[in-house]
Amino acid sequence: MIVLFTDFGTTGPYMGQMRARIQDLASKEQIIDLMVDAPAFNVSASAKLLAGLVKPMPKEAIYVCVVDPGVGSDRRALCIKTQYGWFVGPDNGLFEYIIRNDSSSMVYEIIWRPDELSSSFHGRDLFGPVAAMLASQQEFEKNLIDKDTLVELDDKDEPGQVIYIDCYGNCWTDIDATTLSKSDLIIYNGIEISFSRVFSDTAVGTLFWYVNSSGFVEIAKNQGHGAQQLNIALGSRFTIKK
Amino acid sequence: MIVLFTDFGTTGPYMGQMRARIQDLASKEQIIDLMVDAPAFNVSASAKLLAGLVKPMPKEAIYVCVVDPGVGSDRRALCIKTQYGWFVGPDNGLFEYIIRNDSSSMVYEIIWRPDELSSSFHGRDLFGPVAAMLASQQEFEKNLIDKDTLVELDDKDEPGQVIYIDCYGNCWTDIDATTLSKSDLIIYNGIEISFSRVFSDTAVGTLFWYVNSSGFVEIAKNQGHGAQQLNIALGSRFTIKK
Amino acid sequence: MIVLFTDFGTTGPYMGQMRARIQDLASKEQIIDLMVDAPAFNVSASAKLLAGLVKPMPKEAIYVCVVDPGVGSDRRALCIKTQYGWFVGPDNGLFEYIIRNDSSSMVYEIIWRPDELSSSFHGRDLFGPVAAMLASQQEFEKNLIDKDTLVELDDKDEPGQVIYIDCYGNCWTDIDATTLSKSDLIIYNGIEISFSRVFSDTAVGTLFWYVNSSGFVEIAKNQGHGAQQLNIALGSRFTIKK
Repeated sequence: MIVLFTDFGTTGPYMGQMRARIQDLASKEQIIDLMVDAPAFNVSASAKLLAGLVKPMPKEAIYVCVVDPGVGSDRRALCIKTQYGWFVGPDNGLFEYIIRNDSSSMVYEIIWRPDELSSSFHGRDLFGPVAAMLASQQEFEKNLIDKDTLVELDDKDEPGQVIYIDCYGNCWTDIDATTLSKSDLIIYNGIEISFSRVFSDTAVGTLFWYVNSSGFVEIAKNQGHGAQQLNIALGSRFTIKK
Repeated sequence: MIVLFTDFGTTGPYMGQMRARIQDLASKEQIIDLMVDAPAFNVSASAKLLAGLVKPMPKEAIYVCVVDPGVGSDRRALCIKTQYGWFVGPDNGLFEYIIRNDSSSMVYEIIWRPDELSSSFHGRDLFGPVAAMLASQQEFEKNLIDKDTLVELDDKDEPGQVIYIDCYGNCWTDIDATTLSKSDLIIYNGIEISFSRVFSDTAVGTLFWYVNSSGFVEIAKNQGHGAQQLNIALGSRFTIKK
Repeated sequence: MIVLFTDFGTTGPYMGQMRARIQDLASKEQIIDLMVDAPAFNVSASAKLLAGLVKPMPKEAIYVCVVDPGVGSDRRALCIKTQYGWFVGPDNGLFEYIIRNDSSSMVYEIIWRPDELSSSFHGRDLFGPVAAMLASQQEFEKNLIDKDTLVELDDKDEPGQVIYIDCYGNCWTDIDATTLSKSDLIIYNGIEISFSRVFSDTAVGTLFWYVNSSGFVEIAKNQGHGAQQLNIALGSRFTIKK
């Protein structure tokens, strides 16, 4: 299974061109879009999301991950072997949390290049074909590299940030739900938000936080748009009251 | 073929996580998104849409249907054998019209549970895997139940409502097109809307009603946004003038 | 591989119903959405886009192309054999540039009709099934026709128009990038826009033009919405300063 994680959006030909290229090279392989609206240009939030999202996924998938504002520059191309499967994408910090979560992961620089490499679409021309070669156990030139040489994210803050707002207006945070207890409150702009196990345990219109199905603490509103009501945007910071 | 009908939207990881889980369990099966923007939280409109949409579909598909504001409560999980194939989803009325349209349908409560069941994502953790087991003819625990015990929709009104507004602004109604004649008018807010066979039989900008490709009466505007012009929203009621 | 190019949008059941019909008739075939937001009702812009997009695609795909405001009228249905593969869709000019780019292409009128043909959804009922029959090398009734009899586009202007605005706000133009040199400027509303090789060669917020990954000249803004800043819409015209 080849799994795609990108900020290409739901429209335009980008996902289709990448899928067609991969499918052409790995005709039997199933291709799944995990997410096409990872936070655009925001490698840090995308990196946190990716690390959480892979946990409930099938083992041994091959991930093509493209949140890559530096495409066309001389940043390296990576493929990484982990307990979750392979990850293919740019050396810009996108895999930082994946690698931290799996100390036995092995990081390779991709040396192979296709005959035609556009300067702006490495998802289609480079990362996608590498995923297809991995899926079909085909050799390609790559070098094992030292993890200390990887580009690091510029986000050494404590957790406490919104990293994704979904189409319902629910706010995914970068807090691992196992680190909070049910009595903890989330404080945003002076508003106290308390825990509920599920949407249907609250009255319609209630703000609450809960443990979402990917293990993140999530701020939600039952049958309403939490982000709009609270005026929360991607990157908004909040605090925890124990 | 496994067919998905949900209100998960076009963005976020929800469809991808569900598809990946299903594909992992039924690796050869083709998975088709029939609709990802069924009316959210609106089980009644979704139930009417679903019953109409399956008619022109291939026979013997396995449908995973998730419009489920009560996820995490103790509502039952169902799988239903019908002449259109199998349907898997919550016991909240979503299958009411499917069952009415096929008196020989058989309704089962799903007893099987996965090792890990999130409280908010039964599409990925429960309904999807059940669809995969049905596709691969794998046994799982389920009980035949009496249809009289099913949760019923709270919508015993006469038809005459908009149940979906598509991206062009065309308004799907809950009127079965076989019940109207071409001389009938639709009256909305005092405006009389008459029949046209196809878009291209009208002048650009004309409002008309026609029989859409799924058998519903649909209110449309040629190359324009009918819902905006008429100020129609999901659930808007209209009358028929014979 | 069956490739879909439509203006059906990302929501609603239209793509799903068409995909399900095709998959049912060609169960082993992979189906790829190349683009679902081709410029709606705008056959000319869609025709230019399509001709460019197929160039970096795998060879020998079967394309189902539906931008078809005249559906239900008596316009002909076509299938066309080209060096890029087969194209299936309406005789309304959508394939004009594909045919111009391949003088050896052969154009057929589709005579075959399904048992049930809706008046408004030939993608599902006619073009999709024809693609499935082509994929499975199944015979169906068609007539070779003279290219001089094809419906022609009403757009004999010089190139110099925006034909697609993507979700980032980047503006695809109808200029083949091989016809410009890097010193050429694009002039829009008196604003001079100069060349950059890639996004990452410019400062954040810079407007520039570049050669996009499909070979089009594209007007973009690094990490910003170029179309909004310039007030560009689909069809906006600009000039080139050599």
